[in-house]
Amino acid sequence: MDLNNLNSTRFGKKANEHVLVLTPLQNDEQYLDHYFQLLDKTNYPNHLISIGLLVSDSTDDTLEKLYDTVHRLQNRWRNRFYEIDVYQKDFCLDEKPNDTSLNSRRATLARAKNFLLTAALREHHSWVAWVDVKLHSYPATIFSDLMLVDGDVVVPNCLLKRQDDEFWGFDRNNWQESDLSLEKQQNAAEHEVLMEDYNQYSIGRHLLVDMPTHQSTRIPLDGVGTTFTLVKATVHREGAVFPPFVYQHELDSEGFAKMVKSMGFSVYGIPSYTIYHF
Amino acid sequence: MDLNNLNSTRFGKKANEHVLVLTPLQNDEQYLDHYFQLLDKTNYPNHLISIGLLVSDSTDDTLEKLYDTVHRLQNRWRNRFYEIDVYQKDFCLDEKPNDTSLNSRRATLARAKNFLLTAALREHHSWVAWVDVKLHSYPATIFSDLMLVDGDVVVPNCLLKRQDDEFWGFDRNNWQESDLSLEKQQNAAEHEVLMEDYNQYSIGRHLLVDMPTHQSTRIPLDGVGTTFTLVKATVHREGAVFPPFVYQHELDSEGFAKMVKSMGFSVYGIPSYTIYHF
Repeated sequence: MDLNNLNSTRFGKKANEHVLVLTPLQNDEQYLDHYFQLLDKTNYPNHLISIGLLVSDSTDDTLEKLYDTVHRLQNRWRNRFYEIDVYQKDFCLDEKPNDTSLNSRRATLARAKNFLLTAALREHHSWVAWVDVKLHSYPATIFSDLMLVDGDVVVPNCLLKRQDDEFWGFDRNNWQESDLSLEKQQNAAEHEVLMEDYNQYSIGRHLLVDMPTHQSTRIPLDGVGTTFTLVKATVHREGAVFPPFVYQHELDSEGFAKMVKSMGFSVYGIPSYTIYHF
Repeated sequence: MDLNNLNSTRFGKKANEHVLVLTPLQNDEQYLDHYFQLLDKTNYPNHLISIGLLVSDSTDDTLEKLYDTVHRLQNRWRNRFYEIDVYQKDFCLDEKPNDTSLNSRRATLARAKNFLLTAALREHHSWVAWVDVKLHSYPATIFSDLMLVDGDVVVPNCLLKRQDDEFWGFDRNNWQESDLSLEKQQNAAEHEVLMEDYNQYSIGRHLLVDMPTHQSTRIPLDGVGTTFTLVKATVHREGAVFPPFVYQHELDSEGFAKMVKSMGFSVYGIPSYTIYHF
């Protein structure tokens, strides 16, 4: 099988490039219909979209609901997705502390995501999209739009959907280092984790959610979250994972962005490209 | 697909656990026959062995020879392997410097191995074995023997086959840190790579090849090579890769061992369990 010609180009739709959408689930029964509706409504052709779902530790009917939905979607006359695979693996997430230890919820979520990736990634996938199950809305053109940005990893700006239609920053893991945050890392012990929102003090990074939302140029980032993250498949194939161990003072998706940059790949966010989380 | 019951036990053969053998190739036409003969002669059942091969930058007939051999082996009446998959991806290995830079041969080999892993790993694999194509000999019981050791990553002692039947250390990447080597790392800059055999000075580690070969107990290791390395599949699935970037002063397989340990998994070598490299 010749994998030399597996490309991820700016015009993926025209080039018939396959996207693998990956989503970890845990007691998310109520969000499933909306999640599939949003994916179904994108203008990226369904026959070029594969979906991989990992169900962990669920006590509600996530799994039953999921199988029903997959059955319904894939038995349609047209617009079936290329494939939808459901994996189960319990990681005991609820028992994990909400801190930055190697046994924390974030470190365990990283293991779960890597597990899902290695189970679902196939030779024909050119792109991997990490998509949160609890998204309220994103543009139907999102896959093509983010491909056009021409980065190895690209994120939109994920805001919180409020009842009063005001917005609020949601994905605070999309950030750029500042002089201050770099200086703090210089002085931190090698194994100290300096993630946003886990420390008493501010680390002084530039968060994507705080940038002016009329700014449409791509901004180089140093940390990303996984509310919606488009990755060229080769980035994962060549070894970028979500570290469940400390990598450059980070864990999980922020550590992933750091690895991606260490490997010479690019990471971008677009302040004006807004999507909304419930 | 429920992956909760995917186990890697001490008695893998009895439990029908699948092994995925992974081998990167580059101009290795002359070694292929012997490589498959050795795998064919193990007493681990062939129907539980999958083989994944990645051919890079080959100018000889590696690929043609490989397809012929796979065809012959898999069309036998009995003893077929579970599956043999051949992948091609050129990494321009010959143009890479033989140093410890992020563009070096070792860092690029790491990318190639991760690429092979993500392409070949499937849900039914309980074990991943990294096997060098240029091995002269190993015991037919090697898979079962190494499983019995009950480690997450286990390596035998790989020596060099000499004409005069004397032996000599081959895989110098299997090692244990010493007080001296740890001290040197304390004083090294964060991004400095301290691999064995790449520095002018000795780093003072305890190499598996230097340990008494009558010593049959398992020894905890901190670095491994990939002449023959048995890994529980979950170690790779949860995120341990061959870093093409600096991780704890290492790259590639030695960095892999460091990651494995950071994730709380065990790494062992057995001084008395000898295999031979050409």
